[in-house]
Amino acid sequence: MDINNIVKKGPLYSGKAKSIYEVDEDKVLIEFRDDITAGNGAKKDVKEGKGYLNALISSYLFKKLEENGVETHFIEYIEPNYMLAKRVEIIPIEVIVRNIAAGSLCRRYPFKEGEVLKRPIVQFDYKNDEYNDPMLNEDIAYNLGLATDEELKKMREIALKVNNILKKVFDDVGIDLVDFKIEIGRYKGKLVVADEISPDTMRLWDKETKDILDKDVFRKDLGDVIGKYKVVAKRLKLI
Amino acid sequence: MDINNIVKKGPLYSGKAKSIYEVDEDKVLIEFRDDITAGNGAKKDVKEGKGYLNALISSYLFKKLEENGVETHFIEYIEPNYMLAKRVEIIPIEVIVRNIAAGSLCRRYPFKEGEVLKRPIVQFDYKNDEYNDPMLNEDIAYNLGLATDEELKKMREIALKVNNILKKVFDDVGIDLVDFKIEIGRYKGKLVVADEISPDTMRLWDKETKDILDKDVFRKDLGDVIGKYKVVAKRLKLI
Repeated sequence: MDINNIVKKGPLYSGKAKSIYEVDEDKVLIEFRDDITAGNGAKKDVKEGKGYLNALISSYLFKKLEENGVETHFIEYIEPNYMLAKRVEIIPIEVIVRNIAAGSLCRRYPFKEGEVLKRPIVQFDYKNDEYNDPMLNEDIAYNLGLATDEELKKMREIALKVNNILKKVFDDVGIDLVDFKIEIGRYKGKLVVADEISPDTMRLWDKETKDILDKDVFRKDLGDVIGKYKVVAKRLKLI
Repeated sequence: MDINNIVKKGPLYSGKAKSIYEVDEDKVLIEFRDDITAGNGAKKDVKEGKGYLNALISSYLFKKLEENGVETHFIEYIEPNYMLAKRVEIIPIEVIVRNIAAGSLCRRYPFKEGEVLKRPIVQFDYKNDEYNDPMLNEDIAYNLGLATDEELKKMREIALKVNNILKKVFDDVGIDLVDFKIEIGRYKGKLVVADEISPDTMRLWDKETKDILDKDVFRKDLGDVIGKYKVVAKRLKLI
């Protein structure tokens, strides 16, 4: 594949940290850029090596999901910071799964940071910057025309299955999967996990030291964010 | 029943617009006061006659629900502004049902004020002033220990049934039931509709003129709120 030729045409879509290029009517090339943002873009920076690490980690985790029977958009990792993927119609819902209370959950409700939840929380947030990604319920999602009831039910099932797989992957390397968000797309009549799964989209805490290994390092100015992403990649034996 | 004697002992609980007095271990007396508040108590006033009108309207609507097979806490209306009720354990969830988009739905999501919804929205908000009554989903409610999955399912069913009954009651007198909130309590192993159902807890619009006949008149300073509550009571032939 001639990446230069594909990229030269310009992206179909460029988000806060990724750009999407058309390959053909069935496939896209995803570029993981070094841009890092937080607070709906209010805080931004460029961190060299982030695109590479996120493409690498995402590709590995999508492969793990596929091996465990979850369909994803992933086709192939392309060094250093690209992913070839199926071209899906993204459902504009952030599907969040939480195992341990952190972040907005503790700001919005009386949960203590670090509290292990009695059962995972699956949360649907509407991807809408103008409205600050408000939480949805099934009736609101239906009325906004975002997804059908069956799709939402299936999305919940997928989210919980992904959680079980990822929890095991990280547990095996001494990391707690605190929470994560995925996006789901429609592809040839099926729902597949799309977007990325990286330290940008998960909260990861070292089991022993409780060291933060994810984008919260950037959000909260806790130090060398790239160093932490490298810890994740090393634990997963990717670098 | 000697109301003076009951009231003399002081309330078990006093909220923003109602006080609850103990009658015996099975029953309470609810006093509908003339206090009116909005914005989580940020705006407040006293409107003479409001307690009377809300006790009258609530009592009538609870009777309508009972006649149509919905169990409620209602026992008896006691003039002018009291209701005798079963003593329930209130579930700290505001159960909101919306037929037409208005209020916070339009602030939080891209719905147009007045837009008729494709299907009713049932929404669960956590009754918690400190956290500003955040919206819940089933997993969050479970983890907060507020209600079981079965209770939430049953609460949704009750909410939709109440909606059908109230919509018909108001439709018959030329009023659109835009939305409402109810509270639900546990009583002897059953879920029953509790609290109040009044222009304080519903949005009611005249079908023809779109005149607002509920607490939004106070929230938005639109004029004589008691006059509007009287319109509702008159249409229902209660005064």
